[in-house]
Amino acid sequence: MKVLIIGGVAAGPKTASRLKRIMPGAEITIIDRDNLISYGGCGIPYYVSGDISDEKELRNTSFHMTRDEKFFARAKGVEVLTRLEATAIDRKAKTVRVKNLDSGGERDLDYDKLVLTTGARAHVLPVAGADLPGVYTVSDLHKAIAIKEDLARGRVARAVVIGGGAIGIEMAEAFADLWGAETSLIEFMDQLLPNLLDRPMALMLKNAMERNGVNIHTGEGVKEIIADNDGRAAKVVTDQHSIDCDIVIMAAGVRPRDGLARDAGLLTSPRGGIVINERMQTSDPDIYAAGDCLELSHLVTGRKGYAPMGSLANRQGRVVADNIAGLARRFPGYVGSFIMKAFDVCVGATGLTFRAAKTDGLNADFVITAQSDRAHFFPEQTVIPLQMVFDRDSRRVVGLQGFGPMGDGILARIDAACGLIARGATIDEFSNLEMAYAPPFATALDALNATANAADNKAADRLRYVSVEDFMAWMDDMDSRPDWIALDIRHPVEAEPFVKKFGDHWLAIPYIEMRERWAELPTDKELLIICDAGTRSYEIQCLLDSRPEPFRSLVLGGGFNCIRRIGVPWWPQS
Amino acid sequence: MKVLIIGGVAAGPKTASRLKRIMPGAEITIIDRDNLISYGGCGIPYYVSGDISDEKELRNTSFHMTRDEKFFARAKGVEVLTRLEATAIDRKAKTVRVKNLDSGGERDLDYDKLVLTTGARAHVLPVAGADLPGVYTVSDLHKAIAIKEDLARGRVARAVVIGGGAIGIEMAEAFADLWGAETSLIEFMDQLLPNLLDRPMALMLKNAMERNGVNIHTGEGVKEIIADNDGRAAKVVTDQHSIDCDIVIMAAGVRPRDGLARDAGLLTSPRGGIVINERMQTSDPDIYAAGDCLELSHLVTGRKGYAPMGSLANRQGRVVADNIAGLARRFPGYVGSFIMKAFDVCVGATGLTFRAAKTDGLNADFVITAQSDRAHFFPEQTVIPLQMVFDRDSRRVVGLQGFGPMGDGILARIDAACGLIARGATIDEFSNLEMAYAPPFATALDALNATANAADNKAADRLRYVSVEDFMAWMDDMDSRPDWIALDIRHPVEAEPFVKKFGDHWLAIPYIEMRERWAELPTDKELLIICDAGTRSYEIQCLLDSRPEPFRSLVLGGGFNCIRRIGVPWWPQS
Repeated sequence: MKVLIIGGVAAGPKTASRLKRIMPGAEITIIDRDNLISYGGCGIPYYVSGDISDEKELRNTSFHMTRDEKFFARAKGVEVLTRLEATAIDRKAKTVRVKNLDSGGERDLDYDKLVLTTGARAHVLPVAGADLPGVYTVSDLHKAIAIKEDLARGRVARAVVIGGGAIGIEMAEAFADLWGAETSLIEFMDQLLPNLLDRPMALMLKNAMERNGVNIHTGEGVKEIIADNDGRAAKVVTDQHSIDCDIVIMAAGVRPRDGLARDAGLLTSPRGGIVINERMQTSDPDIYAAGDCLELSHLVTGRKGYAPMGSLANRQGRVVADNIAGLARRFPGYVGSFIMKAFDVCVGATGLTFRAAKTDGLNADFVITAQSDRAHFFPEQTVIPLQMVFDRDSRRVVGLQGFGPMGDGILARIDAACGLIARGATIDEFSNLEMAYAPPFATALDALNATANAADNKAADRLRYVSVEDFMAWMDDMDSRPDWIALDIRHPVEAEPFVKKFGDHWLAIPYIEMRERWAELPTDKELLIICDAGTRSYEIQCLLDSRPEPFRSLVLGGGFNCIRRIGVPWWPQS
Repeated sequence: MKVLIIGGVAAGPKTASRLKRIMPGAEITIIDRDNLISYGGCGIPYYVSGDISDEKELRNTSFHMTRDEKFFARAKGVEVLTRLEATAIDRKAKTVRVKNLDSGGERDLDYDKLVLTTGARAHVLPVAGADLPGVYTVSDLHKAIAIKEDLARGRVARAVVIGGGAIGIEMAEAFADLWGAETSLIEFMDQLLPNLLDRPMALMLKNAMERNGVNIHTGEGVKEIIADNDGRAAKVVTDQHSIDCDIVIMAAGVRPRDGLARDAGLLTSPRGGIVINERMQTSDPDIYAAGDCLELSHLVTGRKGYAPMGSLANRQGRVVADNIAGLARRFPGYVGSFIMKAFDVCVGATGLTFRAAKTDGLNADFVITAQSDRAHFFPEQTVIPLQMVFDRDSRRVVGLQGFGPMGDGILARIDAACGLIARGATIDEFSNLEMAYAPPFATALDALNATANAADNKAADRLRYVSVEDFMAWMDDMDSRPDWIALDIRHPVEAEPFVKKFGDHWLAIPYIEMRERWAELPTDKELLIICDAGTRSYEIQCLLDSRPEPFRSLVLGGGFNCIRRIGVPWWPQS
C-alpha cells in the first residue's frame, strides 16, 4: 500500500511513524514545501527568547537526533521529500501533482491512501505596510530564525506584537524578558485571549504582563505600519496610538490551509477547514486529514469549530494511521484545553468561557474562587483563582479557567477537568472529584472541589454575585449606584485604609463579629460583601439570608485576592 | 432540629459548618474527646519536621484564626464541647451518653440527627515494648507536640519508623531531613507503600529515600522494642537486625473507630468500619457517618474497602450536611487517589495497582513509560515514569502511578486520571485525553497520552515486556536465563561500558542502524531490547516482528530511565 502524506510538521510525521510501525509493509512518503520538517512549532517563542539556544533543538528527538529526511529514512523507514509543493490532487487517478520548488520541475505521485496535513497559514491583517521588511509572522522556523537574527544583531530595541492570543503573548514575553526590548502588544478585542478567557482572568494576565514591562493595548485596531527611510517597518499606527518600533510580529491568528482539498472537490467548511468524520476521513474515503487544516467538532457545544493545536495534531495523526491500518479508532472532537506561561504567571482553560457558553445558548453561569493551591499551613502555598462555567439547567460543568504562578498547579486543575467536561460531568461530580491530596500538593478539599461547591451554591442562588466588572465600575464611580455599599469583613487592619478612603461607601465589620453585629447593617442598601477569597463572604450572605430583616447582599466572587491580581488604581496606599 | 456530631477533627467540623449555612435554624453541637479540634492531621509530619513552626498553624483558618471552641461558636454558630467522650448511643431515646474526661461527670445529649465522625485509631503492633516511653503513634496533635519536644531538646539522634506507608515515609523524612537524625524505616511487606504502588515505583521511592540517608528495611518484621536503663525505648529488634534509637514512631496503619456504632447496633463491617449507603446514612436513617470511621465502596472494583483520607472526609462531610438538610446528594465511593512528597521526589497513584487488579480478578496488564514531563527541548524538562494498569478484556484503565521530582507534574497526571478511572474510561479515551499543552508544561502528546498509547500497543501484543523484576533478576544472574541477551539500542557511547562489562550477554546496535543491521541479530536468543525510555525499543520490536526471521524480543518498559531511578549495583562505572 502506498500512502502519501502532504505536510511534514506535526500530524504528518506522526501519522507516518505510527503507520509504519503497525503496517510495516506500507510505502510511506511525506512531502513538504519546506526543507525544515517535523519541528516543535510551539517552541518558537522559546527559541526566539533564547531559552532554547539552537533551532535544531526544536527538530531533535528526545534522544538528540535531528528529524530530517535522512532520519526518517533510516530510523522510521519513511521517505521524506522536501521543497516539494503539492499543487493538485487527481482523485480519480489517485495521483498528486507536485512541483519541485528549487528546479521548478513537476511530476505526479500516486497513492492508495492520501493524508492531508497541510496545516495553517498565518493570518496577515489587511493593513498598509503589513508586507514591509521587519514585519514577521510566526509561521515557520525560517521566520523564527530571521527574527532571532534581528535580535542577535542588536537591531531590536522596540518591538510591537499585533495580536493578544497565545503566540502574541509568548512572543511579547520573548522580546521583553530576555532581550529587554521595549515591547508593546496590540489586541483588537477588549481583552487578551478573548476566545479562551473571560474578562477577570484576562485582566489578571494583562496586569502580570504590564508588571513585567509590556505595554498592553487592548481594544485598539491597527491601521497602518509605516516604514523608515530604509523601507523597514518603524511605526505601528492604531486608532489610538502611534508606536515606534524596530520589529513587528504579526500574530493575528491562523487560518486552515484547505485550498488543495477544496480544489480537489473535497468537502470544506464555509468558515475554512477540511471536513472530516470521526475516523478522520475527508469526503473521499481514501483521503484522510489531520492537524491545523481541519474543522473539528466541539465536544461541549456539538458545533463545528477550529482548534489549531500541536497537541491535537499529534493525537489525530495516530488515529489516522490506525484507521488506514484497519484499526477502527475515533477522534470525536475537541474540548479546547489550553495553558500558557507569561513571565512568572500561567493561565489555563478548558471547555467554554462564560461568554461562549452564553452565546451557545446555554443557561450559563459561573463562579470565581481564590483558594490556596496547597494546604494553607504549608509554607509555599499561594492563591490560584479558578473560574468554573456551568449550565444552570443541566448542572453540567462546561468550562474551567485558572490563573496562578508558573508551575504545574494550574495544569493539574485544567487536566483534571478536561476529560470530565468532555464527558458532560456535573457540578456534583466535580465536588466529589477525588484529586490526590497531601499538604505539599493540594488542600484537603482541592481548590477545584471548592470551586464546584461554590458553583453548587450559586446554582441554588444561595450564593449571589456582584460581577468583578460591575464592582470595578462602581469603585470608579460610586455615585453610579447610590444603593450599593461595601461590607468589608476582613481583618480590621486590612479594612481600615478602605474605610478611611471610601468613607460612607465602606462599612467594615469583621467576619468573626458578624453573628453579633448583623443588626447594625442597613436594609436600604445592597451590601457588597468583601473578603479575601469570597468564602467568608458567602458565609455572611447565608447568615444575612437567614435573618428576618430583608437584607440584600451580593458577594464579590474571588474577593480581593482576585482584585489584587487584576490591579486597580484605587487601591489605598498603606 | 438538633444535630449532634461526635468527632471534631475533619468530617465533623465540615458537616457542621456546611449544615449551619444551608440550615441556619439547626442547633448543631460537636463533641470531641480531645481539647484540640479541627486540625490538619495530614500536616503533622511537616510540623514535626519544622516546615511548620507552630502547631496552631494546623488549627488555623486560611485567614489566620484558630479553629477552637470559641471560633466555632462566634464564626459558625456551632457549639463545640471538648474533653467529652461519647460512651453509648440510645437510638430509641435518641440520646448519646457522654462523659466529661476532666470531671468524670456523665450526662445525656439528645439529637434529631446524629453524625458519627469518630475517625480512626493508630494500629499498634502487638510486640513487646510497644508501650514504652519514646514510642509514639502519629494519631493526634498531642503526640506530634511531644515528638517535636523530644526533637527540640536534642534527644533524638537516631530514629526508627515502623511502617512504610505514607505517614511513616513522611515522618522518616521529617527526622532525617531537617533534624539530621540517623533514621531507619522498617516495613513488614517487601516494598514501601505496598497497597498504593507496584514494585518498580516503590523501588524508585526506596532509592530516593536511601539517597537522602534513610535506612530502609523492607521485608522485615519487628519483634520487640527494648528499653534502656531509664525505661525509654532504645532499640528496635527485627527478625534480621537490631537498631539502636532514641525514638520510635509506630506508623503501622490505622483502624476505623467503629466501636460506638457497633455497640449501638449499627451495621459495621467484619473488617471494621461503619457501613453506610450513598447518602452517608448508617443502618439507622437518623444517624449519618463520615470520615475515617467508614467502610467505603471502591469505584473500580465495586468491593468494600477502607480509605482513611482527610480529603475524602471533607467531601463526605458536605454530603452528610446536604442530606440532613434535605438536598439529595450522593457519595458513591472512592477510587484511591494519593500523592506524597519524599525529600526531593514525589509519588502519586490513583485506582488499582497491577497487583490489586490481578487479585480483583481482572485480566490485568500494565505498561511503564519514562517520558518527559514537558517539551524535551524545554530547558527544565525531566523524565516522569508513569505506570498504567488496565483490563485487557474491557480496555478499561483501572490505575495510574507516577514518580517524579517534587512539583505538581505528577499531581497533574494523577488528577487528570482519577475522575476518568472512576467513570470507567478506556485506553482510547486516555489516548485522546485533551490535556492542556504548551512547551513549559507538557509534551505535545502528554506523557499520560503516550502511556495510554503504550497500553494500546501492549493490549494488542504489539508491545511485549520483560518485567523490571525479571530483568533485574537476570542482571544479577545472567546464567539463569541462557537464552536471553540484551539488545542495547542506545547511543554507542552509552552502550559501550555495558558491552565491556557484560560481554556476550550484551549486544549493542544503535537504534538508527537497526533497519540496516537487523540481520545480525540471533534468532536463537530472546532479545531484551533496551533504550532510555522504552519508546525506541518498541519501534525495534515492531521492526523485528515484521521480518520473516523468527526473532523473539521483549522490551524493557520504561527503559534505563526507570532502572536508573531504581538504582542498581551492577551499573558500570564510567
